[in-house]
Amino acid sequence: MNKFTYQDLFSFSKQILLNIGCPEEDASLAAKVLLSADLRGVDSHGVARLSGYVRLWEKGRINPTPNVHVSYETPSTAVVDGDGGLGLVVAPFAMKVAIEKAKKAGTGWVSVKNSNHYGIAGYHAMMALEHDMIGISLTNASPLVSPTFSKERMLGTNPISVAIPAKNQPPFVGDMATTTAANGKLEILQRKNLDAPLGWVQDAEGIPTTDANGVKKGGALLPLGGDREHGSHKGYILGSIVDIFSAVLSGANYGPWAPPFVAFLEPDPNPVGEGLGHFFGAMRVDAFRPADEFKSHMDNWISRFRSAEPIPGHEKVLIPGDPERELEAERMENGIPLIKPVEDDLRVLGEKFGVVL
Amino acid sequence: MNKFTYQDLFSFSKQILLNIGCPEEDASLAAKVLLSADLRGVDSHGVARLSGYVRLWEKGRINPTPNVHVSYETPSTAVVDGDGGLGLVVAPFAMKVAIEKAKKAGTGWVSVKNSNHYGIAGYHAMMALEHDMIGISLTNASPLVSPTFSKERMLGTNPISVAIPAKNQPPFVGDMATTTAANGKLEILQRKNLDAPLGWVQDAEGIPTTDANGVKKGGALLPLGGDREHGSHKGYILGSIVDIFSAVLSGANYGPWAPPFVAFLEPDPNPVGEGLGHFFGAMRVDAFRPADEFKSHMDNWISRFRSAEPIPGHEKVLIPGDPERELEAERMENGIPLIKPVEDDLRVLGEKFGVVL
Repeated sequence: MNKFTYQDLFSFSKQILLNIGCPEEDASLAAKVLLSADLRGVDSHGVARLSGYVRLWEKGRINPTPNVHVSYETPSTAVVDGDGGLGLVVAPFAMKVAIEKAKKAGTGWVSVKNSNHYGIAGYHAMMALEHDMIGISLTNASPLVSPTFSKERMLGTNPISVAIPAKNQPPFVGDMATTTAANGKLEILQRKNLDAPLGWVQDAEGIPTTDANGVKKGGALLPLGGDREHGSHKGYILGSIVDIFSAVLSGANYGPWAPPFVAFLEPDPNPVGEGLGHFFGAMRVDAFRPADEFKSHMDNWISRFRSAEPIPGHEKVLIPGDPERELEAERMENGIPLIKPVEDDLRVLGEKFGVVL
Repeated sequence: MNKFTYQDLFSFSKQILLNIGCPEEDASLAAKVLLSADLRGVDSHGVARLSGYVRLWEKGRINPTPNVHVSYETPSTAVVDGDGGLGLVVAPFAMKVAIEKAKKAGTGWVSVKNSNHYGIAGYHAMMALEHDMIGISLTNASPLVSPTFSKERMLGTNPISVAIPAKNQPPFVGDMATTTAANGKLEILQRKNLDAPLGWVQDAEGIPTTDANGVKKGGALLPLGGDREHGSHKGYILGSIVDIFSAVLSGANYGPWAPPFVAFLEPDPNPVGEGLGHFFGAMRVDAFRPADEFKSHMDNWISRFRSAEPIPGHEKVLIPGDPERELEAERMENGIPLIKPVEDDLRVLGEKFGVVL
C-alpha cells in the first residue's frame, strides 16, 4: 500500500474537479471535504469516490457551476436548493446558512434539495465548533437498506453526525451510519474475499447472509440492530428520520427514490422530488447557558467517560471522535495510505484528464 | 391477567397523585401521560411506575407543587427549570414552550433541568402533531448502560422520540430506547424466569450474559448494536447525544450522575447539576415548505414503505407508530391488562392512601 501526502492528493483532486468545470473556489472546497475523509480514516468516502463523482458528471447528474441558493426561510430555518451541484460544495453552503441563522435566532436548521453525495457527514457538523455551536449533519443516500421485515431496499445508510464543543478537551464528534455497518466496511471485506458477520447483510430473499457481496446480488444492508430481537426496528426508525428531515422537508427524493451514487443502480425514472437531500442544524450553546459553563461541563463529561473502567482486554473507553482525530494527526504527518485498486483508479482518472498523481 | 378500564386506572392514578399533594390540574395531566404508556403497550412506563413516583416523593425527591418556569431564552430556545416537579408535568410544560417558540421562529428547542422521570418519550413528541409540527423528545435516565468497552454504567436507556405529521395517513411516531432492549423488556423476562438474548446485557465483569437479572447484579444494559462488531459504539454515540442535549445544555445531572428512578440505586451524593434532564424540539413543517405539500409527501412516504415487499413469514412492513396506535384503540375499547404483580402493587398503594382500585 503506497502512501501519499495530503497536499499531493488534495492538488490531484482539485485539478480533476477543475477539469470537469468547477470554479476554483468550489474545486478547492470539494477537494478539502473529500480529503477530510481520507485523513479521518473514513477511506470509503475520500479520494476513493472521486471517480464516482466524475461518473455522475459524465452522466449529466452533476452541475459543475450551480446557483446554490436559499429558496425559502424563517428566522430559524431555510431550504437550500443545491441546483444539482456537488454535495461537497452544497453542504458547506447550507451549513453556513444554519450557522448564520443560529447567530440571530439561537439555532438554525436547513434542509437541502437538489444535491448529491456530500462526503463525510462529520465535516459539515464540525463547521459549527469554532462558533461555540453544536453542529448536526444528516443526509439520505443510495437505497441499499431494507427496513425490518422488508425484502425491498428502501433507505440509504443515512448517517447522523453531531459535533459538540468542549473547553480544554477535544470536541465530541459522533459520525455514524444508521446501519450495522457502512457500505465501506463491506467493500474492505469484498476486496479481501472475507465473509461479513451475520447481522450486516441479508440476501435477495431477505435471509441473513455472510456474503460480503450480498448487496450487489440484490440483497440489502441491515439497519443498526441487525435483526428484530436486537433492535433493527430502531435502526429503521433512525434511517427514516434522517430520510424525512433531509428529503421530505426540503422537496428532494426520499426513500427508494433517492438518486443512487453506486454504479450498479440507476436513478428512478419517476422521481418524487429534486436530487438528494441533506439536513443541517446549528445550536449556539449560549442559547441555553453561558458558553464557558457549558464547555467546562463538557470537559467533565468527556474526562469522566474517558476514565470509565474498561473491560479486561480493552485498553480504554473511547470518546466519539477520538479515533478519527488521532488518525488525522498521524496521516497529516506520515501520509495517507491508498490500497492498490484506489491508486489504480486515480491513475486512470488522471490519464483521462492529463493530471499526474 | 385482569383488565381495567382506562377511566378506572386514570381516576386511581389521579387520586394517588392528589394524595401526595399535586394540584388538581397537575394530577390530571400526570395521570394522562402515565396512562398513555399503558394504552400504547409500553407497560413498563405506565401505572406500573406509579408506586415508583410515590417512593421518590417519600424520599423528598419530588416537589408536588413546583414552580416550573423558563429560566433562560432566545427566539428559538429556552431552558426550563422543573423545580423538582414530576417529569410527567414538567415535560408537557417544556414541550408547550417549544411549540410556542416554533410558532414565531419556525422552530423551538427546550432543554430542561431539575426534573425526573417523564413517562413515555412519545407522548411529548406527539403534542406537536396537531400544530402541523414535527415533535422531538429526548431524556436522560437512570445510569444502567455501559458504553462500548466499559465495565462501568455511565448512561441511561436515553430514548429518542420523533413524531411527524401526515395528511390522510396516521402520523410517523418513532419512540425508542438507544439500547438494544429497554429495561421494561428485561423485567418481563425476569418475571417469567426466562433468559435474555445475547447482546442485551453484560455482567459485572463486562462479559456478555443471558442472565435477565444481570443488571441488578451489577451488570449493565448494552447500547443499541449490542457489541462492537454490530455497532454498539453507535448506540453509545446516540445515548451520549441524548445525555448531553438533555443535561449538559440545561444544567441537569449527566452520565453516571443522573439521579436514578430504579429502587436499587441511590442518587450520587455529589451531583454535577440539578435533577434529571430532558430535551424537546418542535419544527413547523411550513417553516420548510407548505404544510399541505409536506403532508402529502409524508402520505406517499408512508404508503410506499407500508407496501414494501415483506420477507416470507412476515405479514407486512410496519411504519413506526403502527403497533402502538393499534394497541391504543384496542385497549381503549377492551381495557388495559395488568399483570398480577402490578395489580398487587397498585392495591398496596391504594390502601396506603385510602384509594380503591
